Amino acid sequence: MTEALPPPLPRVLIEPTVRAALAEDLGRAGDVTTDAVIPPGTAARARMRARANGVAAGLDIARLAFALVDPALRIEAPRADGARVTRGDLLLEVEGEARAILTAERVALNFAGRLSGVATLTRRFADAIAHTNARIAATRKTTPLLRTLEKHAVRLGGGVPHRYGLDDAILIKDNHIAAAGGVAAALARARAFAGHMLKIELEVDRLDQLDEALAAGGADVFLLDNMEPPTLAEAVRRVDGRAVTEASGTITLDTVATVAESGVDLISSGALTHSAPVLDIGLDFD
Amino acid sequence: MTEALPPPLPRVLIEPTVRAALAEDLGRAGDVTTDAVIPPGTAARARMRARANGVAAGLDIARLAFALVDPALRIEAPRADGARVTRGDLLLEVEGEARAILTAERVALNFAGRLSGVATLTRRFADAIAHTNARIAATRKTTPLLRTLEKHAVRLGGGVPHRYGLDDAILIKDNHIAAAGGVAAALARARAFAGHMLKIELEVDRLDQLDEALAAGGADVFLLDNMEPPTLAEAVRRVDGRAVTEASGTITLDTVATVAESGVDLISSGALTHSAPVLDIGLDFD
Amino acid sequence: MTEALPPPLPRVLIEPTVRAALAEDLGRAGDVTTDAVIPPGTAARARMRARANGVAAGLDIARLAFALVDPALRIEAPRADGARVTRGDLLLEVEGEARAILTAERVALNFAGRLSGVATLTRRFADAIAHTNARIAATRKTTPLLRTLEKHAVRLGGGVPHRYGLDDAILIKDNHIAAAGGVAAALARARAFAGHMLKIELEVDRLDQLDEALAAGGADVFLLDNMEPPTLAEAVRRVDGRAVTEASGTITLDTVATVAESGVDLISSGALTHSAPVLDIGLDFD
Amino acid sequence: MTEALPPPLPRVLIEPTVRAALAEDLGRAGDVTTDAVIPPGTAARARMRARANGVAAGLDIARLAFALVDPALRIEAPRADGARVTRGDLLLEVEGEARAILTAERVALNFAGRLSGVATLTRRFADAIAHTNARIAATRKTTPLLRTLEKHAVRLGGGVPHRYGLDDAILIKDNHIAAAGGVAAALARARAFAGHMLKIELEVDRLDQLDEALAAGGADVFLLDNMEPPTLAEAVRRVDGRAVTEASGTITLDTVATVAESGVDLISSGALTHSAPVLDIGLDFD
Amino acid sequence: MTEALPPPLPRVLIEPTVRAALAEDLGRAGDVTTDAVIPPGTAARARMRARANGVAAGLDIARLAFALVDPALRIEAPRADGARVTRGDLLLEVEGEARAILTAERVALNFAGRLSGVATLTRRFADAIAHTNARIAATRKTTPLLRTLEKHAVRLGGGVPHRYGLDDAILIKDNHIAAAGGVAAALARARAFAGHMLKIELEVDRLDQLDEALAAGGADVFLLDNMEPPTLAEAVRRVDGRAVTEASGTITLDTVATVAESGVDLISSGALTHSAPVLDIGLDFD
Amino acid sequence: MTEALPPPLPRVLIEPTVRAALAEDLGRAGDVTTDAVIPPGTAARARMRARANGVAAGLDIARLAFALVDPALRIEAPRADGARVTRGDLLLEVEGEARAILTAERVALNFAGRLSGVATLTRRFADAIAHTNARIAATRKTTPLLRTLEKHAVRLGGGVPHRYGLDDAILIKDNHIAAAGGVAAALARARAFAGHMLKIELEVDRLDQLDEALAAGGADVFLLDNMEPPTLAEAVRRVDGRAVTEASGTITLDTVATVAESGVDLISSGALTHSAPVLDIGLDFD
Repeated sequence: MTEALPPPLPRVLIEPTVRAALAEDLGRAGDVTTDAVIPPGTAARARMRARANGVAAGLDIARLAFALVDPALRIEAPRADGARVTRGDLLLEVEGEARAILTAERVALNFAGRLSGVATLTRRFADAIAHTNARIAATRKTTPLLRTLEKHAVRLGGGVPHRYGLDDAILIKDNHIAAAGGVAAALARARAFAGHMLKIELEVDRLDQLDEALAAGGADVFLLDNMEPPTLAEAVRRVDGRAVTEASGTITLDTVATVAESGVDLISSGALTHSAPVLDIGLDFD
Repeated sequence: MTEALPPPLPRVLIEPTVRAALAEDLGRAGDVTTDAVIPPGTAARARMRARANGVAAGLDIARLAFALVDPALRIEAPRADGARVTRGDLLLEVEGEARAILTAERVALNFAGRLSGVATLTRRFADAIAHTNARIAATRKTTPLLRTLEKHAVRLGGGVPHRYGLDDAILIKDNHIAAAGGVAAALARARAFAGHMLKIELEVDRLDQLDEALAAGGADVFLLDNMEPPTLAEAVRRVDGRAVTEASGTITLDTVATVAESGVDLISSGALTHSAPVLDIGLDFD
Repeated sequence: MTEALPPPLPRVLIEPTVRAALAEDLGRAGDVTTDAVIPPGTAARARMRARANGVAAGLDIARLAFALVDPALRIEAPRADGARVTRGDLLLEVEGEARAILTAERVALNFAGRLSGVATLTRRFADAIAHTNARIAATRKTTPLLRTLEKHAVRLGGGVPHRYGLDDAILIKDNHIAAAGGVAAALARARAFAGHMLKIELEVDRLDQLDEALAAGGADVFLLDNMEPPTLAEAVRRVDGRAVTEASGTITLDTVATVAESGVDLISSGALTHSAPVLDIGLDFD
Repeated sequence: MTEALPPPLPRVLIEPTVRAALAEDLGRAGDVTTDAVIPPGTAARARMRARANGVAAGLDIARLAFALVDPALRIEAPRADGARVTRGDLLLEVEGEARAILTAERVALNFAGRLSGVATLTRRFADAIAHTNARIAATRKTTPLLRTLEKHAVRLGGGVPHRYGLDDAILIKDNHIAAAGGVAAALARARAFAGHMLKIELEVDRLDQLDEALAAGGADVFLLDNMEPPTLAEAVRRVDGRAVTEASGTITLDTVATVAESGVDLISSGALTHSAPVLDIGLDFD
Repeated sequence: MTEALPPPLPRVLIEPTVRAALAEDLGRAGDVTTDAVIPPGTAARARMRARANGVAAGLDIARLAFALVDPALRIEAPRADGARVTRGDLLLEVEGEARAILTAERVALNFAGRLSGVATLTRRFADAIAHTNARIAATRKTTPLLRTLEKHAVRLGGGVPHRYGLDDAILIKDNHIAAAGGVAAALARARAFAGHMLKIELEVDRLDQLDEALAAGGADVFLLDNMEPPTLAEAVRRVDGRAVTEASGTITLDTVATVAESGVDLISSGALTHSAPVLDIGLDFD
Repeated sequence: MTEALPPPLPRVLIEPTVRAALAEDLGRAGDVTTDAVIPPGTAARARMRARANGVAAGLDIARLAFALVDPALRIEAPRADGARVTRGDLLLEVEGEARAILTAERVALNFAGRLSGVATLTRRFADAIAHTNARIAATRKTTPLLRTLEKHAVRLGGGVPHRYGLDDAILIKDNHIAAAGGVAAALARARAFAGHMLKIELEVDRLDQLDEALAAGGADVFLLDNMEPPTLAEAVRRVDGRAVTEASGTITLDTVATVAESGVDLISSGALTHSAPVLDIGLDFD
């Protein structure tokens, strides 16, 4: 199954984050090394290249970091966010004032490396289950303040972003069920509250809970937590298309194919965003 | 060699970041699941526990996340940031309004897991070189907007924070040297600019560059980039205590001890902050 | 049908808005009238009362406005947000430093009057259709920067908040359909993009469009735009429970009952938030 | 009496508000409908038209909303803010990337509709008293965070903005008088505090208070609160040009002419900003 | 003539500025000296004392700086803002965690010293003209971002704050007159625009301009710029109580008495805020 | 000794401060004088000139203030920041919309005057010691919120910026020494904490303290506080090149040469930033 790449995030949405990252790095005195060593007017050309295989993400952010430091820089991006890249591939080419390129370099690379890391890990999971109908999904276990960017990177890697926050869907977990007095009560309350524009997902970790929930009705999605693949398959059988099924619980690249083969629609993994190693990306000057 | 733990970061410094993370998660409508399912006035007690061995960090941040959502929550932290923890250890205990605990939970865990991950990886590197005089150091390859927190986590794991930004020390890299017209010229410019309160570090990747720099004088620290251990040892010998020596370049837990045995003072690794997996931390309700 | 009142919005979500409103009113020099005329230490007690019948909303915001100007003020709220109030009812009682009460007064009243106005108008619509199963819903036609507060007021008045922004559900309108090349194409694209946590709503203004959409499948909600009640009834019949139905298009208090009796699930009205007159609320000093 | 239109507000003053409104609507994930349904590169032309008669305001804001989402949009505004418009009149024409137009549409319309509503209601009041020398004035009963914009809309409708906040003029009300120990004492304190650049207005609700204030001196403006037209006329006679006179107190379009004919200089009405219905403005695509 | 001291600025107005100043000083890593050298739990008591004679201002700000770093500090202020102080006088006493006191010290002193400097210089001017009816006034030549605080300090020193910004009064200067086509035209336009709540001040630098303006009418205040005392006296005579008179133009402590004796109501001086030397204030630990 | 001028601060670093200053001056209603008096479309040319001799600074900031109010203004700067200027010299020429020039004027002048004042006073100190090897240095006694700009102005005047905040170097003062239990203990703690990228400065006020510190080792810089020139000379002799020496303590233009002749490397003075009178700069219209 192929999925279209998401369009770029609008600048009005990402600019405050990039400005804040530049402010964090520039501090109060700015780039003292460049001020000390590089005379104004020095021209340079630099190339950002992948130093490992993966999926590019954050190139738009990197480009914006350079442009915010110096709008006169000429920037070309032969690869778009979402492209599979191979070690050595050219990702971005920047030409102009050397001082500006050096000042923006680290922020640009930090975004590109981190977000490409998320996209790359997502892609690995997605590829591992490409022979099934399941898709890999992120969670809310994202880096604080970077949720928009990381969820976008998940999409670029072929994953599903899942909830962006506490407010855009209902996800009833074990503690909610306990406090509400059971699965049926929790679902009833949720349905009454949710209105018509919020999906309701319910976490179950046993088949009898699932049966109770199916009897009660009202869940759009079941989060099947920490179930073994045979149990997952049985759960999928019992749901029988009446809701979306999502498996979760420490699923790794080694186990994900087996999980997907159970027939679940989605497999969610916090690791996509909380533990993805960066993709190694470097900036080389001519 | 033992090092003292750094004192907690002052609240005035971290509060804006925690508020921003809560705002990111609450979105416009707030925690709709809790609003739907948990009646106001429901009491609860929850315990944050390590689910793996590591070093705790971000507990102060987690605590602040809970307190910002509800100042009436009672919070105990039997372990302080920086403590070595074992799977199952109690890290934080929160008691009060169930709704507030559930609303703050994810933000608290996201900070604690991520920062403990940084501290834990740092600790592993630090332990691996504990038989030498070398110390492990972070870089500016941190998560955008979280530099203060991640550098602090590096300290909590026994590491050295290194530069916090472009403005608190001079670090002359290959591109600076090229633009300045050589090592001696770059050092002269840096010394003239730096004033008396900024350290100057110079990156060299060959011994002849090091010799040129030693002859020129003015570097407080040498960044010995991508040198093999024997070359590092020779570099240390040539520096002979006249400057601090720092090794860098894709050093792993497997190779770090050998690198440290070369006699360098510091070993810096971007992986501490850009690729540390989270420490698995969970919140369980009574 | 009775619906539970939503719990109060958490302070961490509303405080920035209240602080900004106070800053807007205080300007650079602060409350010069009070500074000129009221000596520090003057005690006062003031009572906020409804001067018309309606539904209270924004009392929590008003309370916070007083508390931010002077945390020592003693504030009692005999009526909670969401309560039906009658002309003369006491809403809030504030006691303490007269200067603080006078300084916060206007901001407190501006929020309370405006939000109570929204809740009151919503309540009128809700009451007018209480004999049906339909519910009244808001739109994104809210006051810029006050969406969270106004949507909450809609809930307090017995309405449904609908989308909080462009990102929490998909709503395909005529222009989207045209650009996508028809209803079926638009729905297919939306379903592929939406993932499992976003609802999809489709606007149709003719029954043949509805038929096409039903055949294509994939819409969770139909926005039946500008249809006469008999057409609405026919649309409801054709949907036959396979999706939620929502009527829209300049519906007034005079027409809403007839629209509701068509059998639609929801009736949405921008007027709830863009044209609600304030509820007259005054603050009287003893 | 004709009054010149105020010049447009400078962009540096309004841009933060428009950016905040866009951020509120875009949320964390952006415009998911457009992302799903409209391919990048789709061109469109849309026309913003009045759907009712009134006075245009907020067109500059709408234009900025479009420009902030996509600076490449071509925008023409055949009508300027302040123009009287008739149902069907073209207000703004936007051409370029369809996605950008759709994303900015709601924010642009929310500002334009709301501010045009304020200007239109103001214009109705102003027209109703055009045969007198009185002018209609706003109050501080504005929408929180939109005071600058709403006061400007009042001007565009031919009204007088009155105080912009607590700090730009002194307005002594009944509670101030009581706390100060009477009219004369309050005026004396105000005069001593005010310096030479702040006007002083005093609220009186009885003629004997007015007499006392006239005897005491020091008021630049009298706010004649809740007086019947004959009493207002008597008050104007007694003031005899020594101060500006302003009538207030639930004045409606039905009563305003009679009030104005009493000879007062100004009539202030909170309804201009707190209860103006929006002017219906729509955006139609070609 | 004695004037009452202005009440303290409300915390909601000043807190953002103090937080920003602390953030500026703490940077990313916080107070590294204190972290390195002072063990948590070390108690201390420190006393802020005047090291020169003057007028205290900014003590409230200093107090807030300490409280924001550590709310548990016990702070006593034997002298209030506005008090005349003598070298050696105790201004503030802080007791509690030594680390917190040291961290906040510089920000507290920077505010107190600078604002006391403004109050002290103002007091000197005020004292020099105490035998006349004239008062000393500030201008808009304040430190960017500190206008609220500096205008307040001027009041504390016995001065008049004058305009707080471009928007709270009209001040027509020579360039405005030229662009408007003369004094009479400028006044007419200003009067038409100003509404009833804005004062109008007109700058004149020759007596014939003054005559023209008096004939035209409409100015509440005349700014008599760069006139010699005899000319000022003649101007005052011609104005004859019909407007307030304000002298300006490089007036020093040496010349101010002579200027005041001309009979003008006000003398304004940018030096009060742009060139006041700090009052030397120190913090000594027991 | 001549020093190169520092490059301009990057716009991304200074823009928030300039925007905030414009917002402070524009308030809520904007420039009402210009709105009242100057018709849109009026063209003007204005010249910013020095009215006294000094060193220019803040011209880049002034330029940005004009550009932010109206990007269409044409701005020429014949003198660069850091240039020595003579009374009458042209600093900036602005041409375009008269309204924009008048609106931005005061903010532009406030920055330029204040920062040029700092640069000018620094230059005077620097010139007074030009016959020695000493350099003049600033302190953290800067204007709150303007540290970046003022430190840059110090550089432009030929001075050394010293620490930019509490976090970029360690400076151990008397209170730290007392709390740590003596000079040697404090230095040991600092050295253990500092890592390799922070300089350590120690304040001593007696020669025996200096001896103790030299014996302990670890200080990069000595702050010789309140020593007479002969004592300073002896201190320099004892340090003998092993550390940088800095003299401080109420040093004036009269005494600085004598202090510098003691052989110290640096002389720091808070007066550079806390008590520099503005450089008189005016804006004249053609």
